[in-house]
Amino acid sequence: MLSLSQVKIRAVLAACLVGLPPAVAGAAEDIIWRQVQPENLVFMELPEGRVTLELNPRFAPQTVQQFRKLVQDGFYRGLSFYRVIDGFVAQGGDGSDLGELSLVPLIKAEFEIELAEDIPFTLVQKNDLFATETGFVEGFAAARDPAGNKTWLTHCPGAVAMARNDGADSSRTDFYIVIGQAPRYLDRNMNLFGRVIEGMDVVQKIERGRADENGIIADETKSSRVRSITLASDIPESERLTAFVMDTESRGFKHMLEDRRNRKQKFFHHKPPKVLDVCQVPMTGRVTK
Amino acid sequence: MLSLSQVKIRAVLAACLVGLPPAVAGAAEDIIWRQVQPENLVFMELPEGRVTLELNPRFAPQTVQQFRKLVQDGFYRGLSFYRVIDGFVAQGGDGSDLGELSLVPLIKAEFEIELAEDIPFTLVQKNDLFATETGFVEGFAAARDPAGNKTWLTHCPGAVAMARNDGADSSRTDFYIVIGQAPRYLDRNMNLFGRVIEGMDVVQKIERGRADENGIIADETKSSRVRSITLASDIPESERLTAFVMDTESRGFKHMLEDRRNRKQKFFHHKPPKVLDVCQVPMTGRVTK
Repeated sequence: MLSLSQVKIRAVLAACLVGLPPAVAGAAEDIIWRQVQPENLVFMELPEGRVTLELNPRFAPQTVQQFRKLVQDGFYRGLSFYRVIDGFVAQGGDGSDLGELSLVPLIKAEFEIELAEDIPFTLVQKNDLFATETGFVEGFAAARDPAGNKTWLTHCPGAVAMARNDGADSSRTDFYIVIGQAPRYLDRNMNLFGRVIEGMDVVQKIERGRADENGIIADETKSSRVRSITLASDIPESERLTAFVMDTESRGFKHMLEDRRNRKQKFFHHKPPKVLDVCQVPMTGRVTK
Repeated sequence: MLSLSQVKIRAVLAACLVGLPPAVAGAAEDIIWRQVQPENLVFMELPEGRVTLELNPRFAPQTVQQFRKLVQDGFYRGLSFYRVIDGFVAQGGDGSDLGELSLVPLIKAEFEIELAEDIPFTLVQKNDLFATETGFVEGFAAARDPAGNKTWLTHCPGAVAMARNDGADSSRTDFYIVIGQAPRYLDRNMNLFGRVIEGMDVVQKIERGRADENGIIADETKSSRVRSITLASDIPESERLTAFVMDTESRGFKHMLEDRRNRKQKFFHHKPPKVLDVCQVPMTGRVTK
């Protein structure tokens, strides 16, 4: 039926962007990429593939310290994502709430930090629905309240945080990855300590539970499990993968934000409002040999 | 190591909601469910599982009419999701841009409609980042501009729209499903004509392309394909599945929204702002025999 081979059609498509404007528009070529420090770089192998995380000790130093230790102790190896709600979170760990019986200490609340001069901030949006200002701090989507002198990481897709009970200081071992529309109402309420920099497509393949069972996967044999999880700094340098993320203070990154805000392409017949959702800026990193 | 069996722990978890509050909080029990009309109900079978769509002829009558015909003609059978960008969209169809050679007519722009008294609207949020008002119209996330007298469907996760070229009236056959953080900047620019009411977990398993190749999957053997796609009204009633979605005008639904807005659970140490992102309200339907 078609006069062109499918392959040719694909090539044409790739060139002329039929259908929708590209997800990453504009001057992406002058974005500077920053190498992730090996002590903040985590590789998690699932049956579905590799997920790469960057930890954020600036916003959650104690949580990062405990998570690193749990990773080094092999705590998560073989454990499952036991509570997975499509469009919300994938929660992994041992699923226990052993209280005083646990040998792992509780983590104090690290929900927000004081604003300080040495915290770089690339503004994305003023008067976002959930915060006075949203933007990026060293590659992480963040928000801040200048009047209250506070800043915090936001629950965008790919955000990684410790689960907890009702108590503010009740995080311990189990963590979740945000897999759907940003649940921003959780901001300033959780120990958010990292983000997925590569492999969200893998995370999206994690087996879901039923929403009406709060995502709990009753049949253990079905749940996705952590094959291994490793801190890059524990791998000999010669064998280690390297990860790069966009330098969110670079001029190129700021240009990209402006391009997204202004939407000058003739594709747009109704000019969108000149606003940006900080959680809708594509922030995928690159992992290489 | 653990004194309880894993199964027991799961049961405890399900009961006491360790980790995070449930995704659907509050008075879910008094939500009324509406049966989807068979002529608006579409079952799409992928190798990954079944995806159920509801079409919306109120907002996009011509697009729905053409999509129904394409479904009935078997147009999509065997075709692939050839452009899939994680966190953005999964686009399917024949991937061609045959222009005048195509036998399928173009569809005129159906980006928004006039506000009218007979369009029910359950308000979710005033002065959302992208619109004067957001809310639900007959189960669909929507927005409206009372001053301009317009209303439109919004690009929330699960939204289904026709792809197009730069021309406003250039939609024809290929469609996309939103699979990531709501790209609201596309609102009022696309023929948005339906939504996934069940099976977003299946959609999330669709094979991705590379973001730096605009999501185009070069290797055809890897892409996810439509095994079959059927309009419920074309299936004999005795063999047909039935689908239910929340009645967004029901008191129970409005209660649920209020519960989400107020977040009264003791879990919240920092009280979230009393706002709601219309795209973050869980809207999964139920499909039964």
